[in-house]
Amino acid sequence: MSRKERRVRVDLADRSYDIAIGEGLTGRLGELALEAGVGTSSNCLVVTDDNVAKTGHLRRAVDSLQRSGYKVFEAIIPAGEESKNLRKAELLYDKAFEAGLDRKSAIFALGGGVVGDLAGFVAATYMRGIVFIQVPTTLLAHDSSVGGKVAVNHPKGKNVIGAFHQPKLVVYDISALNTLPEREIRSGLAEVIKHGLIWDADFYEWLESSTDRIKALDPQIMEDLLARSCSIKAAVVAQDEKENGLRAILNFGHTLGHAIESLSKYGTYTHGEAISIGMAFASEMSAEFGRINRDSVERICGLLERIGLPTEVPLDLDPKELLNSMKQDKKATGGNLTFVLLSEIGRVEVVKNIDEAKVLDLLCRLGRKSV
Amino acid sequence: MSRKERRVRVDLADRSYDIAIGEGLTGRLGELALEAGVGTSSNCLVVTDDNVAKTGHLRRAVDSLQRSGYKVFEAIIPAGEESKNLRKAELLYDKAFEAGLDRKSAIFALGGGVVGDLAGFVAATYMRGIVFIQVPTTLLAHDSSVGGKVAVNHPKGKNVIGAFHQPKLVVYDISALNTLPEREIRSGLAEVIKHGLIWDADFYEWLESSTDRIKALDPQIMEDLLARSCSIKAAVVAQDEKENGLRAILNFGHTLGHAIESLSKYGTYTHGEAISIGMAFASEMSAEFGRINRDSVERICGLLERIGLPTEVPLDLDPKELLNSMKQDKKATGGNLTFVLLSEIGRVEVVKNIDEAKVLDLLCRLGRKSV
Repeated sequence: MSRKERRVRVDLADRSYDIAIGEGLTGRLGELALEAGVGTSSNCLVVTDDNVAKTGHLRRAVDSLQRSGYKVFEAIIPAGEESKNLRKAELLYDKAFEAGLDRKSAIFALGGGVVGDLAGFVAATYMRGIVFIQVPTTLLAHDSSVGGKVAVNHPKGKNVIGAFHQPKLVVYDISALNTLPEREIRSGLAEVIKHGLIWDADFYEWLESSTDRIKALDPQIMEDLLARSCSIKAAVVAQDEKENGLRAILNFGHTLGHAIESLSKYGTYTHGEAISIGMAFASEMSAEFGRINRDSVERICGLLERIGLPTEVPLDLDPKELLNSMKQDKKATGGNLTFVLLSEIGRVEVVKNIDEAKVLDLLCRLGRKSV
Repeated sequence: MSRKERRVRVDLADRSYDIAIGEGLTGRLGELALEAGVGTSSNCLVVTDDNVAKTGHLRRAVDSLQRSGYKVFEAIIPAGEESKNLRKAELLYDKAFEAGLDRKSAIFALGGGVVGDLAGFVAATYMRGIVFIQVPTTLLAHDSSVGGKVAVNHPKGKNVIGAFHQPKLVVYDISALNTLPEREIRSGLAEVIKHGLIWDADFYEWLESSTDRIKALDPQIMEDLLARSCSIKAAVVAQDEKENGLRAILNFGHTLGHAIESLSKYGTYTHGEAISIGMAFASEMSAEFGRINRDSVERICGLLERIGLPTEVPLDLDPKELLNSMKQDKKATGGNLTFVLLSEIGRVEVVKNIDEAKVLDLLCRLGRKSV
């Protein structure tokens, strides 16, 4: 029927699964699901948002599933981070119940990180966990769809209510990239760059040398980029499924990034933009602690900026509030600050009990420089 | 300080844990938690209901935890099945956040099944899962506290929203039995009898011969009874943690039992009473299908009745509605009826695709006999 898609394996014993990457895969979702062992005897539910529903993705996905014999129901949530809460989860439980979903049913998440996290949380908790398939439609979601972290937000913090629930399959259709706004693409590239920085200096250098073709969304380059980026995420997750150790390195740039998202009420910056600033800040801190030299900091900020991502701590956010928010991060324990710092490009270390005063000082210097 | 408590081990690789059974254990909760490796560096939360809070249990538990160095916060929910919903879970997430709980924190569930299921669901999903300790205060909860099934109810069905989250420790204080209403005790004995019926004919016979001392709550007898009943549950769970196979036998009596609870809006019958009727019905069905003889049915109904449990299908419930409710049970898949049937006392089999007409006929004969 079509050329073979790329496959990246996430190795998790009996919870192992494939990430399929290629052009036009949404139109083959049904056969890919069958091949992955998702049964057709029970009804299934496709969850998406109203933006994705407007594109052809939803139709293509549903048609393909129906052609393969699945009895498909649809649930459409409003696009945006505001949908990632318990209220919307409740609506999806209702929908799942109405659609007659049982323990052998599957939920397909067709969309970006919000759809994936929300639908994944519902799949993780409906009847104590049913099959879940991720079909990311944004670049950012290539990252969040791998690793089984699902969640909804609590009014007081992002992803506070959640679970680990591995998908049975991830289907990444490269064609989705063409319908994405440029800002969304840039945002997604922040996590790609992160994967190079924390794990693979070669990949990082490849990103530096391929910037123009990446920005042009060259399909071959994007397929390579996604496969390599997913492989790194998969390798980390395979070694530490439940985030007891190694997986913490994926948090590089996220300590400050989450605080910026939280204090700006998730409105001003995309997730990728916030963690881009966070990565620039973590690089500055790494230099401050003598772990890397200034050249590396400039190289990192240089790539982020060429991609079109911000690197400066927002002037309008109060450094003390940022610090407090970081201390409340769910990765913090006992109120102590933990940062992922660079040892060199391609290698990081999780550093606990970071001196608050130093962080505050650096935030003041890099942020409200004039204060 | 005190004589050694009984221990039953639940064997689940890196999620293994002990059930401690003995008199006065609530007053030693702190030391038992320390011994089980629950850290004191992060704050912890004790969840209980307003009935338990009125007894001395809460004070004893909190005092003991504080003596062992834990920083303890308390959350009290209204007693009763109505509290087992997402709204109350949200209140507990708020409370956990206010109490500064982090990933190394623990939630203690001090109470019956409702407290255990609700607090357990919150522990399973707060920050993607934190440590959870069960301190059951009812006889029924000796069963629900073992095995890691946690959940809240959906308006359309019991335990529809849930997770598997194993406790780190279960502490069963025999002294709690003395403050329980008689009806509550009888209700708990239904699950004990179930364990004998599905797994251990010797234990079942021991129950038959010890009925009087059980009803008198003889402490030594109750300790034996709980240890044996927990051991059976632990053995089944150890072989099938996530309910993919064997664990389904624990559902003996629950197919009709859940339907009765659901149709009577959880008001008329306790869980134990509903499954007592369900077990009597499943025994009748087993005889109907030629699996056991009438003598066994009478022996089973006889023990249930001597304990003071009901065995007759309620006359006021419509057999057709009962049947529909059973088909919607979350253990049903593809709309087919599954029943756990007896092969003999001490051994059961999960039987799929049960003939609906036969079930309906038996329900009519045993229930609305005159209709």
